[in-house]
Amino acid sequence: MAESMKGLHRSHRCTEVSNQNIGETVTVMGWVQKRRNLGSLIFIDLRDRSGILQLVFNEESVGKEGYEKAERLRSEYVIAVTGKVEKRSAAVNESLKTGDIEVIATDIRILSEAETPPFQIEENSQTKDEVRLKYRYLDLRRPDIQKNLMLRSKVAYLMRDFMAKEGFLEIETPMLCKSTPEGARDYLVPSRVHPGHFYALPQSPQLYKQLLMCSGYDRYFQIARCFRDEDLRADRQPEFTQADMELAFVDVEDVLDVNERLLKYIFKEAIGVDVTLPLPRMPWQEAMDRFGSDKPDTRFGMELCDVSKVVEGCGFSVFTGALENGGSVRGINAKGQAGMPRKKIDKLVEFAKGYGAKGLAYLAVNEDGTYKSSFAKFMTEDELKALVSAMQGEPGDLLLFAADKNKIVWNVLGALRLELAKELDLLDPNQYNFLWVTEFPLLEWSDEENRFMAMHHPFTMPMEEDWDKIDSDPGSVRAKAYDIVLNGTELGGGSVRIHQDDIQEKMFEVLGFTKERAHEQFGFLLDAFKYGVPPHAGLAYGLDRLVMHMVHADSIRDVIAFPKVKDASCLMTQAPGIVDKKQLEELGLEVEEVSEE
Amino acid sequence: MAESMKGLHRSHRCTEVSNQNIGETVTVMGWVQKRRNLGSLIFIDLRDRSGILQLVFNEESVGKEGYEKAERLRSEYVIAVTGKVEKRSAAVNESLKTGDIEVIATDIRILSEAETPPFQIEENSQTKDEVRLKYRYLDLRRPDIQKNLMLRSKVAYLMRDFMAKEGFLEIETPMLCKSTPEGARDYLVPSRVHPGHFYALPQSPQLYKQLLMCSGYDRYFQIARCFRDEDLRADRQPEFTQADMELAFVDVEDVLDVNERLLKYIFKEAIGVDVTLPLPRMPWQEAMDRFGSDKPDTRFGMELCDVSKVVEGCGFSVFTGALENGGSVRGINAKGQAGMPRKKIDKLVEFAKGYGAKGLAYLAVNEDGTYKSSFAKFMTEDELKALVSAMQGEPGDLLLFAADKNKIVWNVLGALRLELAKELDLLDPNQYNFLWVTEFPLLEWSDEENRFMAMHHPFTMPMEEDWDKIDSDPGSVRAKAYDIVLNGTELGGGSVRIHQDDIQEKMFEVLGFTKERAHEQFGFLLDAFKYGVPPHAGLAYGLDRLVMHMVHADSIRDVIAFPKVKDASCLMTQAPGIVDKKQLEELGLEVEEVSEE
Repeated sequence: MAESMKGLHRSHRCTEVSNQNIGETVTVMGWVQKRRNLGSLIFIDLRDRSGILQLVFNEESVGKEGYEKAERLRSEYVIAVTGKVEKRSAAVNESLKTGDIEVIATDIRILSEAETPPFQIEENSQTKDEVRLKYRYLDLRRPDIQKNLMLRSKVAYLMRDFMAKEGFLEIETPMLCKSTPEGARDYLVPSRVHPGHFYALPQSPQLYKQLLMCSGYDRYFQIARCFRDEDLRADRQPEFTQADMELAFVDVEDVLDVNERLLKYIFKEAIGVDVTLPLPRMPWQEAMDRFGSDKPDTRFGMELCDVSKVVEGCGFSVFTGALENGGSVRGINAKGQAGMPRKKIDKLVEFAKGYGAKGLAYLAVNEDGTYKSSFAKFMTEDELKALVSAMQGEPGDLLLFAADKNKIVWNVLGALRLELAKELDLLDPNQYNFLWVTEFPLLEWSDEENRFMAMHHPFTMPMEEDWDKIDSDPGSVRAKAYDIVLNGTELGGGSVRIHQDDIQEKMFEVLGFTKERAHEQFGFLLDAFKYGVPPHAGLAYGLDRLVMHMVHADSIRDVIAFPKVKDASCLMTQAPGIVDKKQLEELGLEVEEVSEE
Repeated sequence: MAESMKGLHRSHRCTEVSNQNIGETVTVMGWVQKRRNLGSLIFIDLRDRSGILQLVFNEESVGKEGYEKAERLRSEYVIAVTGKVEKRSAAVNESLKTGDIEVIATDIRILSEAETPPFQIEENSQTKDEVRLKYRYLDLRRPDIQKNLMLRSKVAYLMRDFMAKEGFLEIETPMLCKSTPEGARDYLVPSRVHPGHFYALPQSPQLYKQLLMCSGYDRYFQIARCFRDEDLRADRQPEFTQADMELAFVDVEDVLDVNERLLKYIFKEAIGVDVTLPLPRMPWQEAMDRFGSDKPDTRFGMELCDVSKVVEGCGFSVFTGALENGGSVRGINAKGQAGMPRKKIDKLVEFAKGYGAKGLAYLAVNEDGTYKSSFAKFMTEDELKALVSAMQGEPGDLLLFAADKNKIVWNVLGALRLELAKELDLLDPNQYNFLWVTEFPLLEWSDEENRFMAMHHPFTMPMEEDWDKIDSDPGSVRAKAYDIVLNGTELGGGSVRIHQDDIQEKMFEVLGFTKERAHEQFGFLLDAFKYGVPPHAGLAYGLDRLVMHMVHADSIRDVIAFPKVKDASCLMTQAPGIVDKKQLEELGLEVEEVSEE
């Protein structure tokens, strides 16, 4: 019974009608959000992506047939209504953009009827995720998700606009690539023309963008889909979107400069947030020492304090043992939390253990200056005093200590600091603390592989001033790598790349690559590097995550139109699915029988 | 031996330096295109993506060390040079943008040395495709390819800019989709989490964009990668890029209107071509009758002429036989080609046979008014006169006829017309003839399947005025489908979609779908359609092809950074490749042994 819209033209979206149009005839189209009958009047809230507009039907204006149609309307019917804009007769609805007007219908067509949806289309829906994702096309009608996706579209547009004006070229790189054994797990695509051979979907356009620099494209940008076949976490999807750039003839400063201006531009234009430039910078070592994290949330203090020197030779063997093993003792000061109940402290200890700590030592400075502590009995009064003083402990403070290898201490206290900030409500969502973390270590020792691994990737440029230590103390060489951090989240990262073959060769040597292996894995890039390669550097943002933080979404699924769930399936389309035998035959593939466990 | 660029900042790209900078000191960076020694002077043509700039080295200005470096320079070395801009001492080089200036070097750094490349980096390279594609990173340095990719970037930017301003949202749709048995062959992606199950890479975002309309996004746009595992032709790639849109609450006119303005905008801004609006339109039937093609090149005439009525009952059984079989006799008039040698005509006959003709009848009107013809002997003088007159044949003209089923006649003469136009040089590459082809048939009879098939797809809206013939004469029902054609190439196409469930049901019935089958294939879309669906319509461009025509490239590979060759492999990365056994085990897959044939 759907009517055609032949001859009709929408004149306005719902909230494009305003009190400026009073007296005019408009034609609006959208979904019925709500119908109310009030005496002989029928009120319809009409919804489109712009918002809500109130329509009023009385038989006098809309005629008998039209009135009868209005009486039939139910939620989610799609209608086209022509009518006259009037000042709202009842009280103004302040919560609506169009709350001071209404449209007195003179004509209505029902463009589409609707069954009762499995859940109400409304903001902050309490419907279970599984149901919402099965009916994603209905879930996507919710104004909050629409707002998210509209903002995402705007952010992508603003990025491209900015990058184009800065001379970046958007160049598309392949999706059907070659599988490389390093890194995360690839999604494979079997080849039909070459049975037994596979493409891989790209984990990032890294090699291609470096090639484009070799080829003289100078400034490359792409908003590119990337894929990783890893087990999913809350903020991960099997396919994700990267805003990816690479620049030739630049050093760190140039990359940071253009990205700071990019961020300022999109935060201002998209969500009206003023970002002050230049953004603060912090070397990796300082970030670890002060915040126990390479992506510190600087919206609050509670910084780590290294008390190794202070507790040296004290009577508490947990502390001294850690020091003897080459580790450290560090603490954080939870101001005013001395009264924290034992039960809660025990929970913090458990939390710390989840991050690899063997335990968590605490000392509460009571208001009367006495201590309540898990380890006071092992230390002298003087030792305790020195410790409290080093921690700037005052009456009312709760001091928490971890003692272990540096890496564990940082991990534990970094996480504990964030956990406490959440509990104590120290995180202002409307504060935007950007931070560059720079000078990352070039290499990272792997106990598992018993060798140094590249912290970023094997093409990351070492800092000139450290390069002479590459043989004597490789672990201390810093890299020209940088991450951009917002409120404790890594939004993106990148590095200057090696463009000198002697440095590259040395890097492979340090990483324990034979020449053969290096060639096998990165052959075409190394070949390309023989024919004249400019200095170049780049950076990539996780676009999903960036938008997620701009709209304060809880889940990455709230900023992706058709997301997948934890097992990488789509509840709406039921992908992945079974395919025809014929399709597999053409690919020369057999599916192993899986025993149902 | 590569030097660092530490402390250096590029001040200009090569051709950003102009005679406005004479007397200034600039720093430029790029690749050595050419070195010439002239007495004690060394001339370097420096190349970057902007073009060429001449550098001059004399020992006095650049110093001994610098001069020695300059002496070492060879093609494709990457250098950074600081120097003073001067009026060119020798004759101005008119072929260069910077032909009236040169930079007298005062400092030089060699940022990267280069081996001799396997081929010279130059425009219109004659190097074999295979070599160019193996060393694609070198091939991409050629100024003509750089120009293509820069234009492509600009076109994509202009499109997005235009669409954003028209209220379109760019919304990303999934790449890991569900395989559907209809249409072209899918690329499959095996699932690790669900062994034996597969994703499919999208052939187009069609279903997702229709869902977004159901969800109220109103105007959707995306430049989306699409995939088809089909055997490649010259202008096809396994992955290709589609500029894709969908609009709610619209009819044909709205879609055509916004797309005409889009095309006008990008052709003007990208290549300076003025497109006059509105674009001409032609119903499918007229296009076939006049040009034998649903994508006619209207840059020249030589239109088809239906002479069935004229030859009815004539003595030539090839003509009358075709008519008796329900076919037609049509001809084209190659003006002034009466003198075409018999050998060449024979070639045309062979060409026609390649398009399904059993033969090609010809009649040359000699300058003296006599005829030279393959069939004149079968017809009376009067019959021949009538035929020549119907064809508006004049002395000097060559008339070519095909007689067969309509479809074959159109095919043959449509192709012949283009072939002759090429031979006779009738195609002006700088003329841009756009054309909307509209009112396509809704259905197409398939002898193979012995049923009607959807010509576009099963969701294409029939024309209201024809709908009553859906039972009595389904083949005559026209669709609200449209293609945009430029100079004989289909740039894009689309349709209004069915949004009424009664029409949709009828369509499936006509197509011979059971309800079960329809649900199996399009279930989630049909479900979505239950909950209120707006009238909607869309269109998609093949972006690769569009850009190809804007730059007059011969091959689609000239507008794609990293294309694949005919067997869908990448000669640079050697994708697809063999993968680790472990990867296949994780996917629960076995590769069948392939016997080498």
